[in-house]
Amino acid sequence: MNNHNLNLTDAAISEDRLEQQETRDIVFPHQLEDVAQIAVDIGGSLAKVVYFSRTPGAPGGRMNFVKFETQHIDQCVDFIYNVLYDAYHGQIPLEKRVIKATGGGAHKYYDLFREKLGVEMEREDEMECLITGLNFLVRQISSEVFTYDERRAESMQFESTPAELFPYLLVNIGSGVSILKVTSDTTYERISGTSLGGGTLWGLLSLLTDAKDYDEMLELSKAGDNKNVDMLVGDIYGGDYPKIGLKGSAIASSFGKVFKTPPEERKEKFKQEDISRSLLYLVSNNIGQIAYLNAQAHGVQRIYFSGFFIRGHPITMNTLSYAINFWSKGKIMALFLRHEGYLGAMGAFFRHSTQSTRIQSFKENFTRIEKISGSSLGAVGSLDEFPTNLAAFPLLQAAASYNPDTTDLSKSVPLQQYWFDLLDRNLASLTAIVLQHPGTPRSATDSATRASEFETMYRGHLRRLRQEPTAYGILSVRSLLDLREQCLREMGFNDVFAAVKEAENEAALAGLSILLDRLDALPDDGARIDALIANVLAGNMYDWGSTAVQELLRKGELDFDSARTRVGRPAEFDNTPQLKARLLLDNNTTTQLPYRKAMIFVDNSGADIVLGILPFARFLLSKNTYVILAANTSPSVNDVTADELRSLMRKISDPVLKLAWAQGKLKVVETGMSGPCLDLRRVGEEVVAACHGVDLVVVEGMGRAIHTNFRAEFKVDSVKIAVFKNPQVAKQLGANMYDGMVVFNAAQEP
Amino acid sequence: MNNHNLNLTDAAISEDRLEQQETRDIVFPHQLEDVAQIAVDIGGSLAKVVYFSRTPGAPGGRMNFVKFETQHIDQCVDFIYNVLYDAYHGQIPLEKRVIKATGGGAHKYYDLFREKLGVEMEREDEMECLITGLNFLVRQISSEVFTYDERRAESMQFESTPAELFPYLLVNIGSGVSILKVTSDTTYERISGTSLGGGTLWGLLSLLTDAKDYDEMLELSKAGDNKNVDMLVGDIYGGDYPKIGLKGSAIASSFGKVFKTPPEERKEKFKQEDISRSLLYLVSNNIGQIAYLNAQAHGVQRIYFSGFFIRGHPITMNTLSYAINFWSKGKIMALFLRHEGYLGAMGAFFRHSTQSTRIQSFKENFTRIEKISGSSLGAVGSLDEFPTNLAAFPLLQAAASYNPDTTDLSKSVPLQQYWFDLLDRNLASLTAIVLQHPGTPRSATDSATRASEFETMYRGHLRRLRQEPTAYGILSVRSLLDLREQCLREMGFNDVFAAVKEAENEAALAGLSILLDRLDALPDDGARIDALIANVLAGNMYDWGSTAVQELLRKGELDFDSARTRVGRPAEFDNTPQLKARLLLDNNTTTQLPYRKAMIFVDNSGADIVLGILPFARFLLSKNTYVILAANTSPSVNDVTADELRSLMRKISDPVLKLAWAQGKLKVVETGMSGPCLDLRRVGEEVVAACHGVDLVVVEGMGRAIHTNFRAEFKVDSVKIAVFKNPQVAKQLGANMYDGMVVFNAAQEP
Repeated sequence: MNNHNLNLTDAAISEDRLEQQETRDIVFPHQLEDVAQIAVDIGGSLAKVVYFSRTPGAPGGRMNFVKFETQHIDQCVDFIYNVLYDAYHGQIPLEKRVIKATGGGAHKYYDLFREKLGVEMEREDEMECLITGLNFLVRQISSEVFTYDERRAESMQFESTPAELFPYLLVNIGSGVSILKVTSDTTYERISGTSLGGGTLWGLLSLLTDAKDYDEMLELSKAGDNKNVDMLVGDIYGGDYPKIGLKGSAIASSFGKVFKTPPEERKEKFKQEDISRSLLYLVSNNIGQIAYLNAQAHGVQRIYFSGFFIRGHPITMNTLSYAINFWSKGKIMALFLRHEGYLGAMGAFFRHSTQSTRIQSFKENFTRIEKISGSSLGAVGSLDEFPTNLAAFPLLQAAASYNPDTTDLSKSVPLQQYWFDLLDRNLASLTAIVLQHPGTPRSATDSATRASEFETMYRGHLRRLRQEPTAYGILSVRSLLDLREQCLREMGFNDVFAAVKEAENEAALAGLSILLDRLDALPDDGARIDALIANVLAGNMYDWGSTAVQELLRKGELDFDSARTRVGRPAEFDNTPQLKARLLLDNNTTTQLPYRKAMIFVDNSGADIVLGILPFARFLLSKNTYVILAANTSPSVNDVTADELRSLMRKISDPVLKLAWAQGKLKVVETGMSGPCLDLRRVGEEVVAACHGVDLVVVEGMGRAIHTNFRAEFKVDSVKIAVFKNPQVAKQLGANMYDGMVVFNAAQEP
Repeated sequence: MNNHNLNLTDAAISEDRLEQQETRDIVFPHQLEDVAQIAVDIGGSLAKVVYFSRTPGAPGGRMNFVKFETQHIDQCVDFIYNVLYDAYHGQIPLEKRVIKATGGGAHKYYDLFREKLGVEMEREDEMECLITGLNFLVRQISSEVFTYDERRAESMQFESTPAELFPYLLVNIGSGVSILKVTSDTTYERISGTSLGGGTLWGLLSLLTDAKDYDEMLELSKAGDNKNVDMLVGDIYGGDYPKIGLKGSAIASSFGKVFKTPPEERKEKFKQEDISRSLLYLVSNNIGQIAYLNAQAHGVQRIYFSGFFIRGHPITMNTLSYAINFWSKGKIMALFLRHEGYLGAMGAFFRHSTQSTRIQSFKENFTRIEKISGSSLGAVGSLDEFPTNLAAFPLLQAAASYNPDTTDLSKSVPLQQYWFDLLDRNLASLTAIVLQHPGTPRSATDSATRASEFETMYRGHLRRLRQEPTAYGILSVRSLLDLREQCLREMGFNDVFAAVKEAENEAALAGLSILLDRLDALPDDGARIDALIANVLAGNMYDWGSTAVQELLRKGELDFDSARTRVGRPAEFDNTPQLKARLLLDNNTTTQLPYRKAMIFVDNSGADIVLGILPFARFLLSKNTYVILAANTSPSVNDVTADELRSLMRKISDPVLKLAWAQGKLKVVETGMSGPCLDLRRVGEEVVAACHGVDLVVVEGMGRAIHTNFRAEFKVDSVKIAVFKNPQVAKQLGANMYDGMVVFNAAQEP
């Protein structure tokens, strides 16, 4: 790495620590090795670089984003030079000597790149790259697509991936505007465009104002009022003109007040700020209108906007949104993309032959973020490649409207405050635990430095999110907890609770056979089910992720029996009778059969999995129900991972479980998760494959069944079971602290 | 009348005769009397007035157009004051004390008009007035609607009235732009609009150039080259970008070259002319695109443009046309209206309660023309009310594609030259004839002055049309001859050939009975038909409208027998055998019956009607065929009028004709024409009513069957019969001078 890192903006590094940026290569666990591909999109103002890196010994890799001003293209060339030569110690393999390039500058700087880098420049069609980039992002990155409306409490709102992506319009606003209708991964048509684009705004403003660059013009426009320049409907009609559906505040004629003013008064009367605002409205409104009209003519419902004109600039996005909303009578919302500035570079990246044929899944990583420009909203993370394919959970009732998060924190300032404060307060004790359990060192940096770095990094993100809650996409308990895991991992702390988990598993295993005997001794299945449910709830108390429980656990104040008594059982959260009726088949129909196959999304290690879930699974197995235990792929707090659960299963001596495991009637799959929550929009391929035949889904734990999936609906019967271990969430959902939740939902009749 | 007439532009009055304008009230036969209605449309820059006047003793009335600059609104008020007070000698009847008003200024100047004029101002909705005005013009005025394309030999091309007017889009470009979808005479919706209108162009140009008014800006733009300001597709890609269908010359980014230029060089590099041109293109292109997209979305095929932005300005119209043509891939052409500036005022005019319920037909009169602005194309005539209703001839085979004119002179410069020269040369001898036959004086001005005034007026029009052939709509032999008749009538010469016609009728009547005896003595109907046809052709030689024949007639060198021998009978123009076969019923089918009813469009007085047509009619009557003779409504050269023909019929002594006339088996109807040609798009209601049962249409004479209707097709059998009496037309159509044409067409099988 080198001093070009100055181009990166990193919220995790606070301003007073800038000098440390220079030594990032020391603290970064993701050292460059095997830079698989580099792609560059050279536009009129910015050159965007996408490059792929792998961490030694780690699965997958990372797609990184860097940008340079095109007028300083040499810096871009130097950066790529260093990336390539550092990675290969000056010995670049022949097959890596290819850079994919797009954008107008791909032609202009063709020779420069070839000569200075000694690589082949392969130029790719700009529009096709944009489309490839967009298709990739919309499908792979949650919180990528958003709508923007200043009238809402939170202007940015994120869209879930549509069930059917095509057809859509892509409105690319550069100097001019191209409108593409994209009908599949491989087909599109340029159906329209307009010459009134960014170049028009910039060109006219540079003739009419003293602003020296685009950002200065945008700044000017913020202070302006277009009413001083534009003729409004109200200026003509004295108010609304309801007969033709126009409000008095609508712009009747852009710059319409100018010619009505005597020439000698114009210079003074029309301020640069007002002119800037008016012209920004003019161009944005017009693009929005033309985009809508094309969508209407082609019967397309989704319109994505891209290009340097957008740049996450609030007034621009708001005006485009307003125009689309106005003309479509509220039926269509303009769609923007967080990685919008990198669409072209990303598309070019995927033109690398080795890249285009691989199955890839990516997750956004916010530890190192990149901003498009000073005035833009939000920031983009790098994209971490996931070793297996991720796909939507097939048993979701309505995948298109599924939202994992129970609460969108961006919509409530008090809730935001609560969680920011809680996580901030808990950070010191978490760091203390981290220092006790440093795990295997993954870099030369000592644990203490890395732990401190982690603390600073996460606190920096919290600070940034306090200012701009939607900077990284949807703000939820899930996103905040996932981000904490990312920061831990980024600092080399891959499994802080490894020792805790091991100890708790051992302890729980020791008590398992007595517990099973006790259950077997119960007079009937009814009593047995009651006990099993109580055990699952008691086990779910063992949660190091809960700040409240953490205290009890650290002080050794929690044992399984006391946990059972701590859990409240309010009737409004207890569907145990319905679940029992179903499991005992004592309903009035004779067609009901035992469940064929249950999939249980499990939570914590120790008592939770061993004394809570396994006995419940054993009961299901005894009813001839196959059982799939779905556990995290990567460690997160004391959640049991799939790998850990498989080892644990091999230690079980109970004959029922042992036989079922041996026969494959009891199986473990990995969920694809690496945090304490469960996002069913993208789960691991093992989960997807195991879904065949499943007629009962069980989701366990606060992170999976309360913070997320509280409102999830499934195509089959489902049980959501957890303990409220956070006072705020309990209150918000109408429960008390340590109340148990057993929600049973029968599948809707088709 | 008064000195406000200075606002009128009149091509008939040459520049060196401006002082005579001051005394127009003396030379105008149309003195004001009974000013039925006044309407005014007060826009931001122009106030347009429509007022209705009647000529003492004449049928119908005239809709007149005058405009004033809104900033000199007092002149407009004074003008109306004088019109009203002159017409009623200061005693305005109470029911005339109402002025209809529309446009933004109708509110602003409401009090001014009421107080100064002592009238009631009734304000009418602007959009509704526009639509009413447009519907009226499109239906009533031929050559009202045109397309514009500079790439064609003649930029302006005129559209025939569509069979179904609705739905259409009306794009009204004022300060802003409104796009209306009009679905019937009473229903419309404002479906769209844009704030980028005339006010935007004007406003931005007044900030960027030194032009002081709109016309100056348009002038600037004429000298500019947008390529110096705009970024073209070729500037980016070095040529065409065929992959997305863009030519190198297309504008990629309006003003896109500005920001690429260092600030200190901009003032010098970007000329006002280039900026003006670029901005004019920007606004026009954008309006055209948005209009097209709306047409596409609403499935509308016709887009009319109106508003002060158009003003007949060539670059504007061309850009709008280009945009519509480009985006619709050549499927839609932008439509403009010659009276476009007066749509609103005309619509307001028809809001007068007495006006809205009357059946009205109007014809455009070009003797006094009015221009919209200095830079605009074309000119508009006043609209003369026709005393009866006019409608399309019901027996036309394809009314929508019917074009009366055989040759569009605007498309051929040599043909234009020929006709301008011929009519110019003939003007002196026509004026001499006029002086010999002044008719009944209709004003105090002596005939010599009026004759001279006529000569000057018509010569002025010819001069103007030489410069701008499409200034008054389609340029054809018909339009030039009709215009000559209008000028004659305007100068009080309503029937120059009255004495000639009377003398020739008397002479012909004297020879009728011998001719009929000779025909009756022929051995069979076959020989009789040959003789009848020869007589019609000989009779058609008696044409004072033909410059060549005029000479013969003036020298007395033509008699009926010599006329018969003069007429050539080339086989390619002679369907006499087919006509004979049909009339003699000697075809092989037995289902054929004699014609039930024939309608004959007749031509000249004297030998033509008496010795040619009447014997032919007598033959038809003898076969039990009813006969309708359709003759001109108003005098034109020596053409027989319906009134004259009726008098003539009463002098006929032949028993067959006499009986048929008495029994109503032979009738005369008036065609609605007042010139030597026949425009079947709008014929008199007597013709329409008489069409019932007609199974043979005969069109006679050069003006009716060669200059016009040469290619007309009818739903029933038809005969076109005439003599080529113009060497140029003969040559053009492949005939020789004095060749006879007898074209028979059997009705197409349905």
